Order: sequence, then structure tokens, then C-alpha cells
Amino acid sequence: MALLWEEFYDRTPRPSNLDENEKLLNNFAKHHIEKNNKIVLITSGGTTVPLEHNTVRFVDNFSAGNRGSISAEYFLDHGYAVIFMHRLKSLEPFSRHFSGHKFLDIMNLTMINDVTSISVAPQYVNKISKILRKYKETLKDNKLLQICFTTLSEYLWLLRSACQALTILENRAILYLAAAVSDFYIPSNEMALHKISSSGAPSIHLQLVPKVLEPLVNLWVSKAFVVSFKLETDENILISKAREALTKYNHNLVIANILQTRKQQVVFVSQENDYILSLTNEQIQNGEEIEKFIVQNLIEKHEIWMRSQKLD
Amino acid sequence: MALLWEEFYDRTPRPSNLDENEKLLNNFAKHHIEKNNKIVLITSGGTTVPLEHNTVRFVDNFSAGNRGSISAEYFLDHGYAVIFMHRLKSLEPFSRHFSGHKFLDIMNLTMINDVTSISVAPQYVNKISKILRKYKETLKDNKLLQICFTTLSEYLWLLRSACQALTILENRAILYLAAAVSDFYIPSNEMALHKISSSGAPSIHLQLVPKVLEPLVNLWVSKAFVVSFKLETDENILISKAREALTKYNHNLVIANILQTRKQQVVFVSQENDYILSLTNEQIQNGEEIEKFIVQNLIEKHEIWMRSQKLD
Repeated sequence: MALLWEEFYDRTPRPSNLDENEKLLNNFAKHHIEKNNKIVLITSGGTTVPLEHNTVRFVDNFSAGNRGSISAEYFLDHGYAVIFMHRLKSLEPFSRHFSGHKFLDIMNLTMINDVTSISVAPQYVNKISKILRKYKETLKDNKLLQICFTTLSEYLWLLRSACQALTILENRAILYLAAAVSDFYIPSNEMALHKISSSGAPSIHLQLVPKVLEPLVNLWVSKAFVVSFKLETDENILISKAREALTKYNHNLVIANILQTRKQQVVFVSQENDYILSLTNEQIQNGEEIEKFIVQNLIEKHEIWMRSQKLD
Repeated sequence: MALLWEEFYDRTPRPSNLDENEKLLNNFAKHHIEKNNKIVLITSGGTTVPLEHNTVRFVDNFSAGNRGSISAEYFLDHGYAVIFMHRLKSLEPFSRHFSGHKFLDIMNLTMINDVTSISVAPQYVNKISKILRKYKETLKDNKLLQICFTTLSEYLWLLRSACQALTILENRAILYLAAAVSDFYIPSNEMALHKISSSGAPSIHLQLVPKVLEPLVNLWVSKAFVVSFKLETDENILISKAREALTKYNHNLVIANILQTRKQQVVFVSQENDYILSLTNEQIQNGEEIEKFIVQNLIEKHEIWMRSQKLD
């Protein structure tokens, strides 16, 4: 049996930097409600479940942060302000285009009259100037707030605080819950203090994480447009699992995807219907990203839904 | 009981890209033996242990790759050629200085006569030109080979292949085994096929990984200078654990460190003695890196050891 969500928060230590993050979140939400902007909260990347208090080992969830970081750029293109709540060191909007040595490989060193300068090689200027312009504009307009988590409990504390900050936006907020959140964890009081000795083969006993989607939908942001993700590796159970979640939590949309094909195809599962979004081979070859279409579709749904509420 | 290492390789599938990596390793070793260079093999970052064949979840070891990536730069400064065998997306030499948005934050966009150019803001040119110069020189001299792993079994296959390529260097090779390698794993034939269902609380049964340091020292690179690392969180057992490893595997050196203080202090544990290397508060404030002193000390030891072998 999983703990109730209230018990989880009662028993799990509050992260030391949460006050600071709450300030950032509240200021960001206030700023954008004054500007009459919409906000999307994107969660991105995997959560860790430490096996020891002095953590050397942990269980992790596969996620580089592609879905979240790419989607963030498209939401910004559509005028949304973005709270990007991501796993530390997972992919981030804009900088995602320059991982590894790519940055150093495109730079030229020049020396003119004893003055050194470093510039992007001409053949890359076109592509990079587009990204850099959007990045600088986003910062200038204060359209992007980035906050980080690593562990499951940091994620759960931060998610609740972000929701509380978003309450004032009512239906102008989208929650886009793309993070790969662990279903299992080891409670703080059952965790080893030091690195587990390698003298024997251990068994790790995990407990279920309470499903916070329930209080999120019903209590924390009851007026927001809530989108969750369902990732499976077995195609036979994908849609039924997605619909099961939608029925249970009664939120707006589940975006369902299979691990192996997640960059080419997703299924939108809503109360009304479900339909497939996918890239053609030509689109894949041209470097198109499926997130462009996911975000377009989603924003349309969000608009229609907001309008329908006005009519009520 | 752990499997014998031969059984591990017999039962664990060979990675599909290993042939390609072996070619790179062999060419690199041949190139540098012809140039009469020394080579250090640095392993860096953590290994994952998948819980499912279609992997959504895995056990991981804490390691950003700081020790390995920083040390690589200092070995290059001392003229060594470096094989940098690292966890995919962990820190890498040179690019480690520019993680996250740092790259975008230091770039200026300018427009002169309708021509866009992008350059590093003047206040950063000094620092970055040093890094960029070293990076370009390293590439030009073919002094750095980078190869990647993610899972424990990829690591173990790659390590053996790298050792086989280094055999021809005899005592001119250093092995600097800084990767955080899992002590436990789930054998391929006991792993779930699909994502573990979250309907119940699972127990994960792990087995011991065979210690390949034994065949590495005795068979694979029996003439090389071998350095292993020991990380603990409990100071009381650190030195005894390090000496135990040194006695058991009979290699040249264990570098012992405590998780919480690893950036300020390490202990060199050798057959002859053990001594502490640490940074003063002043050095820490000046941004000095302990790896500079680790590598200096190590290279001296390597030189003395090579000379002593000539005398025999």
C-alpha cells in the first residue's frame, strides 16, 4: 500500500532550497498574470531514488529531457511563459543544441593587432544566431524560469510549490508533466546511512510512491489544464493504461508514447477520443521535431477549452 | 557468490559497437607507441545497471565525471596521450567548463553591413582562449581519444578491449580507473523484459559483479602502472578498505577519498606507505583543482617506477 500523499509530505524532509524556489515561482506567476500571459509548467527529466542517505547509489528513470526541453522552445514561440522544472543536468531549452564538445568545435580563435577574439565559424552562424536571438529575447522578456530537482522527494516538494504559485492563473495555466517520475522509493527512515557494502548481494525493497496527480487535479490547480504522459515499452497495454489514468484522475489529456518510437509518434488520449500524431519519413529527414506538433495541438485544445468555460 | 570474470563475459552480450571502438583503440595505441609517447587510460563517470531489457529504470552510481575529466586535462599538460573512457553525457575534458547555458550567456550577436557574426564577449576571451587553444592543439596532435559507455556491461567489455590495445605500451601505460563502477547487477537472463508494472511494490535482487581488477592486473596489462580509486562515505573504514584492495589485487596505487571531501582531499595508498594530498583554503579560494596535484604526484611515481624497472 502506498502512503497517502499527505503522509508522504509529513514524513519527507522539505528541501533546504525550497523557500528560495517558492519566491522565484511566486514572482514569476505574479509578473505574468499582470502581463495577461499564459504559463505552462513543464516538468522534464528523470527523478532519482537514493539507496543510501550519504548517496553513492540510486535508482533512476531513463530520460535525457528531450521531450520537455524541446517543447519549452515551442511554447515560447507561441507566447507562453514557461516554468521549466527539470532534473539537474538534463537537457535544457536552447543549450540542448550544444551538448558535448560541439561548442568548442564551432569556435575560431583569431588574433588581430595583438587582440585575441573568439567567434563562431561562419558556416554555423546562421543556425546559431536564430537560437541565440530567441534565447536573449526570452531572457529579456523574463519568459523562462528554470528550477531544478534531482531526487524524487525534491521533485514532489517542488511540484506542489509550483502548483500553489500557479493557482492565481486559474485556467490560463497548462501543466505539462513530462518528467519521468519514479513509481517506487525507499522511505527516509528505511534507508541505509552509508554506502552499502559490496561484501554480499543485496536485495532492495521499494515502496510505492503516492500518486500526487490526484490532489494536483482536485486541489492544487483545480482550474488549470493538466496534461500527463504515459510511457510504456509494451504497445499492447499503452492505450488502456493511458485511459485508465485519465479515468482515475479526471484531468484533460494523457499523451501516450512507446519508448522506442517516442520521437516519431505519440497518441493524444482525451475524454472525447484518442488520436495519433506522427511524423512522416520526410519530416524526420528534414529534422522536424514531433514536439512542434504536440505543442500546436495542445495550444489549440487549451484555447477551445478556455473559450468553452467562458460560455458556461 | 559472484561469477568468475570469464563466465561474466561468456554470458553477457558483446556491445554492437565494440568492434568499432577496438579499431579506434588499436590505432591510437599504435600511433603513440610510434611517437614514443606514454598513454593514460582514464575511466570516468558512473555505470548503470538496467532493471528491464527495454530499459526505463536502472540503478546508477553517483558520479558527474569531475575527477576523470579534470585529470585528463592535466595528463595532457604533461605530454601524455589520453584515452578518455567515459559515461555518455558525463563531464568531458575542455567542454566541462561550459555546462548548461554558460555557452549562450557569454556570446554576443553583432550585425555589421548586414553580416551577422557571433563572438565571445570580451571579458571572457582570456579564459576561454586558453581552453580553446589547448583543445585545438590536443586534436591536432591526436592526443585524445574519447569512447563512451552507459551500462555496466558496456563498461566491462570496453575496459577489456582498451587493456588489450594498451598491452603493446608495456610500462608506458597508466590505468587511472576513476569510474564509479557498480558492485551489483542483474544478469541478463534474470531481467524483466518490459517496464516493471507499478501495481505493486517490487523487490530488486542484485548479484555481485566479478572483480575484473584481478585479471586486469595479472593478465590484461600486467606491465602497466595501475591506479584504482576507493570512494567511501564513512571515514572510519576508508584506509583499511583501500589497503585491502591493494593487497588483494597487488597493483601500484589506490587513491582513497571520502564522498563529502573528495574535491579537497585524497589519500595515496601504496605498497610502501600512505600519505594525504590536500588543498589549502587559499588554494580552494583561488580555484585550484586537487587533480593538478594528484596527476603531478602520479607522474613522478610513474617515472621513478619505470626507471627502477630499467635497472633490474
